[in-house]
Amino acid sequence: MVAVQQEKNGHARILAAARTLFDSHGFHQTSMAELASEAQVSVGQIYRLFKSKEDIIEALVHDDADQWCKDMGALQVRLDSGELTIEQTFEQLLIQTIDEKDEALSFDILAESFRNGEVADTIGAMCQRFRVYIRSFACAANDRLSGEALDAAEEMLLACLFGLGHRSISRPRLSAEVAARRTAQMIIAALRGVQ
Amino acid sequence: MVAVQQEKNGHARILAAARTLFDSHGFHQTSMAELASEAQVSVGQIYRLFKSKEDIIEALVHDDADQWCKDMGALQVRLDSGELTIEQTFEQLLIQTIDEKDEALSFDILAESFRNGEVADTIGAMCQRFRVYIRSFACAANDRLSGEALDAAEEMLLACLFGLGHRSISRPRLSAEVAARRTAQMIIAALRGVQ
Repeated sequence: MVAVQQEKNGHARILAAARTLFDSHGFHQTSMAELASEAQVSVGQIYRLFKSKEDIIEALVHDDADQWCKDMGALQVRLDSGELTIEQTFEQLLIQTIDEKDEALSFDILAESFRNGEVADTIGAMCQRFRVYIRSFACAANDRLSGEALDAAEEMLLACLFGLGHRSISRPRLSAEVAARRTAQMIIAALRGVQ
Repeated sequence: MVAVQQEKNGHARILAAARTLFDSHGFHQTSMAELASEAQVSVGQIYRLFKSKEDIIEALVHDDADQWCKDMGALQVRLDSGELTIEQTFEQLLIQTIDEKDEALSFDILAESFRNGEVADTIGAMCQRFRVYIRSFACAANDRLSGEALDAAEEMLLACLFGLGHRSISRPRLSAEVAARRTAQMIIAALRGVQ
């Protein structure tokens, strides 16, 4: 039991160290030795838990995807129970998405996905999970949406979330709260205005 | 004159080679020697024209920004002359933006912008240039937009363009044409639906 717990702690420490180092120095510029030192484990222990550095990237993407899906699932419950209107649901979703953390790391991972099919598959699968929630939210805003119009709404919403998550690069003037509230209003108008 | 022309050719060849190599192998994983070989110039010639690899990245961003602004300026002329409606203008803008090329390179550059203030400033300045056009298009869709509502419209449009430019990572089902046409309709509804 102690060994299992230590392994679990090691796993979490390696991922936390990877998040810090990959974000500050870059994925390719971080060596396994630096990672081991930051995580206070041996290089051997990293290789017992992860096949490669790419494998660590995949674990980070999985962790993020799980967290985001948990957040979206919680919003769905609050929407279904009537606690939130659909406009408030989008506002909350945007607040959670805007000004994402670890942006340098995100972009490193996205660049890697174009050079590594496994990372691309992991990100593709993550987006599929998001699409289920996003589609459901789009239908909650306008239950006449279907077919191509619903597919297009899904694309537009994914694009907005991704873009606002990375808006810091464009030096935005509005606070996250104001941008989220006003974008939620525009999203509702967009979803209700389509044929 | 011949020397000037050779220098100009060298400059263009270095940028073209950088675009290819940085995109396929990564910015940090490409050495100046590899770049010189691909561009058929000497390493010394690269350093006569560019201070550093970061300087090359900045030149690439400037080139892209110039091209995008030229495209947006051309759309503005067609909109002003009445050749395009505002919905058609957004559709064309989206068609030009969707499924951007050199995506791995884009993400490498964006990651670098979080670790290098000069690259961040270059990207920030580029976005300022885009904002002028985007703001003008938003007002063409709804001339009552002003203040915070107009700022928010600008943020939402920038986010949509950025997100759709990188939609390939989410494995979209719709063609670029259909996504652009339908998103243009939703954008118009969004811009006209705000108070």
